[in-house]
Amino acid sequence: MVLNIAKIYDAAKVLSQIARKTDLILSKTILEGSEIYLKSENLQLTGSFKLRGAYYKISKLTDEQKKKGIIACSAGNHAQGVALAAQKNNINAAIFIPATAPISKVEATRKYGAEIKLIDGVYDDAYKAACEFQKETQGEFIHPFNDEDVIAGQGTIGLEILQQLPELEAVIVPIGGGGLISGVAYAIKQLKPSCKVYGVQAQGAGSMYQSFINKKILELPVVHTFADGTAVKCPGDVTFDLCMKYVDDIVTVTDDEIASAILALMERQKLVAEGAGALSVAAAMFSKLPIVDKKTACIVSGGNIDVNILSRVINRGLLKSGRLSHLTIELLDKPGQLKDVSSIIAEYGANVIRVRHNQGGENTDINDCFLKISMETKNQAHFEEIQKALIAKGYKIASNVE
Amino acid sequence: MVLNIAKIYDAAKVLSQIARKTDLILSKTILEGSEIYLKSENLQLTGSFKLRGAYYKISKLTDEQKKKGIIACSAGNHAQGVALAAQKNNINAAIFIPATAPISKVEATRKYGAEIKLIDGVYDDAYKAACEFQKETQGEFIHPFNDEDVIAGQGTIGLEILQQLPELEAVIVPIGGGGLISGVAYAIKQLKPSCKVYGVQAQGAGSMYQSFINKKILELPVVHTFADGTAVKCPGDVTFDLCMKYVDDIVTVTDDEIASAILALMERQKLVAEGAGALSVAAAMFSKLPIVDKKTACIVSGGNIDVNILSRVINRGLLKSGRLSHLTIELLDKPGQLKDVSSIIAEYGANVIRVRHNQGGENTDINDCFLKISMETKNQAHFEEIQKALIAKGYKIASNVE
Repeated sequence: MVLNIAKIYDAAKVLSQIARKTDLILSKTILEGSEIYLKSENLQLTGSFKLRGAYYKISKLTDEQKKKGIIACSAGNHAQGVALAAQKNNINAAIFIPATAPISKVEATRKYGAEIKLIDGVYDDAYKAACEFQKETQGEFIHPFNDEDVIAGQGTIGLEILQQLPELEAVIVPIGGGGLISGVAYAIKQLKPSCKVYGVQAQGAGSMYQSFINKKILELPVVHTFADGTAVKCPGDVTFDLCMKYVDDIVTVTDDEIASAILALMERQKLVAEGAGALSVAAAMFSKLPIVDKKTACIVSGGNIDVNILSRVINRGLLKSGRLSHLTIELLDKPGQLKDVSSIIAEYGANVIRVRHNQGGENTDINDCFLKISMETKNQAHFEEIQKALIAKGYKIASNVE
Repeated sequence: MVLNIAKIYDAAKVLSQIARKTDLILSKTILEGSEIYLKSENLQLTGSFKLRGAYYKISKLTDEQKKKGIIACSAGNHAQGVALAAQKNNINAAIFIPATAPISKVEATRKYGAEIKLIDGVYDDAYKAACEFQKETQGEFIHPFNDEDVIAGQGTIGLEILQQLPELEAVIVPIGGGGLISGVAYAIKQLKPSCKVYGVQAQGAGSMYQSFINKKILELPVVHTFADGTAVKCPGDVTFDLCMKYVDDIVTVTDDEIASAILALMERQKLVAEGAGALSVAAAMFSKLPIVDKKTACIVSGGNIDVNILSRVINRGLLKSGRLSHLTIELLDKPGQLKDVSSIIAEYGANVIRVRHNQGGENTDINDCFLKISMETKNQAHFEEIQKALIAKGYKIASNVE
């Protein structure tokens, strides 16, 4: 174990030339009655904290190592962090990416000047190809988390938060492989041991969570979460040891809770977070941790979410909270009904945003006619009121989902 | 004219207790080869800069005025700014809002404790009702822009940018009624006259633009833009005079350009901006102003965009840049075609995200069968390549729009 606080201070010095000191933003709306501070690493260069560890790691390589170039395997934030760090250090980087990765992430990595190796198959195939390439070239393989220099780089976030908010009482950190929380927990427990450090994982990818509560490293057979940045089957030995020593507790959140957190960050804080980045906020919002009345920092670790997925997250979040509602109404055989239905909806203060009128269909009677209405509502109770009012006027609701 | 730099410094002092000193974020991707700094007022409390002017204005009221309460008319950022400012000053606020306003904005305003007066009709109807109420109660009407205290409050943004980036050479400012640019231009020209100050309006709501180039106040018969925060028919006399004196130039951008800017801010900067808030970035992105090689600040004035609209902006932006593509293919009368089409698309590296298979339809032959495919593509050229490949294999493309 060579991690020590001096190393993290050294990383902070090295990173001061390149990384942004991201803002710590107070939010009073994430958890009513609490002061939640958002450490906005989604606003970091490359859109995530990963630049910190990668850059510091690369800065520690010898000139000879640098000449041989570096290698990484990732479809996401680590790829972009390594690519930019290599560019800033003027060294070659070969990044292995599974061919199934979103085009937007591949293009973003390519833009930083890295050589992209698109490998058919999934992550494991890309990893295998990267290892073979490493043997050939003797380049330095940059591990995404199980490396003390990488961990020291991520730990600089802990130093910054304490500088920005010395009264800090708790910090909530997303966990994938555990690199971020290892560095942050180490830094914070050295400087302010009274401050709690909590970890959060997605329920479908809780490898560190399982290992932590069972007090031994466990590998998950499968991981499934839309917080793709944290879909890691097995924690590293270095990160596991650090978590056991310095982390107070680890909890999990569901994909629906993560989606709600992403929506809340967009609507209330005007910040775009990816699934992994919103884990900490989800844990705070859904009261998974004893932080009420505590000055708590949530690390919003990244913002690299595909905008197509973001669109779906918005819709799901709106539907779930009853703010977007769909009704299919079976119309009676008489005129003026669109007007009647519209009046009832207007009377209850909902905003109609789309109307479709369907006559017939393969599964319906030839005379049947349906009105499909999408509307903006206040919440689930509001939507139910409107349905009741329509039923009271004799309308038959064929469906209240899209 | 009582506006002077001391007043703006006074406003900065008053606001230091309440407003966030928002981050100035360097972006190298907004305009290739240029350093664009984003003044992130979308991250301000209430999600826009409007809090600054409203709070400073209210802080200048006498105790007697405060007792009578304040009145505002707005469906947007001004409403939220006034409501929070009133809450922080412990005074009553009555906010008149047209009943057609989005529910999300009404609820946000209500949450700050203001009394909401929902008025049937459009903005003008709400304004009329507000004026009548003002006569009854003798409360103080808080104008959204044509008021020197309000302007001084907005001017504090100019002071902050110069503090954050003394080398500043140009600043681009969104214009609605002109309150923001008046304050910012005044502050900057007093402190650094060599720094250029540019204004931007939406093409469909260019009242200050028209007035500026014609050197007299002009009222537009109609305004139409999805940058709803800037849909002002006529600039104020105070703001017009200040613009004529201190603003170097004013340009306009189209709604499509604004949508592209919103998408770029989300994807590259992880920031949510509303239409009005993205005006400055749109002007920079689409090279409307001579700022290449100049250290330029774009004020991202607000982030209060309805998430339903944001969803549509994302889709429109993706379609426009050829990153989301739709194909309707007429299938031939033989088996294995879905497989064939999929292979061709995969070979060209596009990601299929939705497939629909339609047999028949009211306007088609009974035997016709269509395959509707939505896919993620790199750009317009990439999409065209795929279409050519399909045609070369004998497929007939019935449509290449959604």
